[in-house]
Amino acid sequence: MNLLGKNKKAAYTQFGIWGEMAIQEARKYTDVKIIADTSQTEYKSILGQDYWLDYSDCDYLYTVDNETINGVEFNFTPYADNVPLVSDMSSNLLTREFNLNNYGLIFASAQKNLGPAGITVVIIREDLLQRERGDLALPKMLDYQLHVEKSSMLNTPATYSWYMLSLVLKWMKEKGGVKYFEQLNARKSEKIYDFLDSQNFYVNNIDPSSRSRMNVVFHLQDTLLTAKFLSGAFDLGLVNLRGHRRVGGIRASIYNAMPEAGVDLLLDYMHTFASTH
Amino acid sequence: MNLLGKNKKAAYTQFGIWGEMAIQEARKYTDVKIIADTSQTEYKSILGQDYWLDYSDCDYLYTVDNETINGVEFNFTPYADNVPLVSDMSSNLLTREFNLNNYGLIFASAQKNLGPAGITVVIIREDLLQRERGDLALPKMLDYQLHVEKSSMLNTPATYSWYMLSLVLKWMKEKGGVKYFEQLNARKSEKIYDFLDSQNFYVNNIDPSSRSRMNVVFHLQDTLLTAKFLSGAFDLGLVNLRGHRRVGGIRASIYNAMPEAGVDLLLDYMHTFASTH
Repeated sequence: MNLLGKNKKAAYTQFGIWGEMAIQEARKYTDVKIIADTSQTEYKSILGQDYWLDYSDCDYLYTVDNETINGVEFNFTPYADNVPLVSDMSSNLLTREFNLNNYGLIFASAQKNLGPAGITVVIIREDLLQRERGDLALPKMLDYQLHVEKSSMLNTPATYSWYMLSLVLKWMKEKGGVKYFEQLNARKSEKIYDFLDSQNFYVNNIDPSSRSRMNVVFHLQDTLLTAKFLSGAFDLGLVNLRGHRRVGGIRASIYNAMPEAGVDLLLDYMHTFASTH
Repeated sequence: MNLLGKNKKAAYTQFGIWGEMAIQEARKYTDVKIIADTSQTEYKSILGQDYWLDYSDCDYLYTVDNETINGVEFNFTPYADNVPLVSDMSSNLLTREFNLNNYGLIFASAQKNLGPAGITVVIIREDLLQRERGDLALPKMLDYQLHVEKSSMLNTPATYSWYMLSLVLKWMKEKGGVKYFEQLNARKSEKIYDFLDSQNFYVNNIDPSSRSRMNVVFHLQDTLLTAKFLSGAFDLGLVNLRGHRRVGGIRASIYNAMPEAGVDLLLDYMHTFASTH
């Protein structure tokens, strides 16, 4: 709504369910051109930019950097020529370094890696605040220009969430910054994927180059064992492992705050469960 | 946006700056009919319903129950025939009993009487969720029907704010419920207004029948003493007494959480300051 302009058309990539929902929402306000789409292969990969259709006649280009439900993630920083590149980084902002200059607009709700739910971080290139807009009437609360003018205090902000976010950022700095978490997240996710690839009791169908470092999605070859797997995990304190209802199976969400010991415990359990079933 | 329908017109009362802002915002989406307006007398009163213009051709009737900046508050529960009555009770929900049945829609941001900022309580009459809507495209996040369908968890809600709200409600019940706070708030505000009316060092110009029980707005007869008054108050721990920049002067906000002892301390200070100046 902030970036729609004279073209009255927006380009979207569709690599998972969050992309799907963003497209549905955008269609209320604009023509949508889906320039890359993996829905027909059940969202098992992120298509490289060589495969994307032309977006030069669009007001912006929209991407979702990590799809939490499907377990796919960009393993490259996309770019867009002459069109603002938008990214929903709700589930992976501050989990690795990337080239911020490629983007026009990034947003991230806090609750995955930044702090408790209730606050959303928005990064917008300054020139986009001045860009000529279409004839869409924007509620004040949704107008980024007004939020910038009022230093993010257009309304009474979510004070506690803001404060908690500052504590998380301090904690991240003490640990060694984004670089530290990038390395930690690589180790954590690789450990699980390496194990998944070494056996066939558990199955992960995602294209290896598109696998999410945040959400490891897999299922048991014998799906009848899923409930037993989950309840045994729960007894060990391994919680929230049930896959999203849209895809089923198992999902290990291993955001910044998950220590490597949590991943090791999960792997021990997966080994044991497989050998006893 | 949720209540606009076939009439394409909405009725508003304008008794303060929050009403003014709501009208500006509504004009983006609908014709606005201002049916009662005290702006020409600097928002010194709430007009009784006998003075309101006809609203029967409107999609809804909008009121602000307490105007925090101007210090006026409804001292009666308004009603609307055949048109949904909307009330912004952000600054006085749960501070007194009232007849909920008169309303179609009530909303209240938490940060005055309900808990920390970051959550908003909405009460909507069920039939209004099904009402035929105009052609306005509503973002999902602003659609009350979807929030109801998803039990207020359409998005990941502001969990900590929600939890804190539950603690505030428990505390209120322990104290004796809304009735207890209604009596406390009456005592607190009457003490200050009685003093203001008994002297002329401090001035409150608000129509006595419209005075806010939440925000006591006044100024010093000699406005040159305002800064000195505020700094002396600050030294005693009496903070946030500066009036809103739009009206100046002094504002004592005495929401549910302000104990009567806070009001007594303020009155002692006001006495002393007046007698020494």
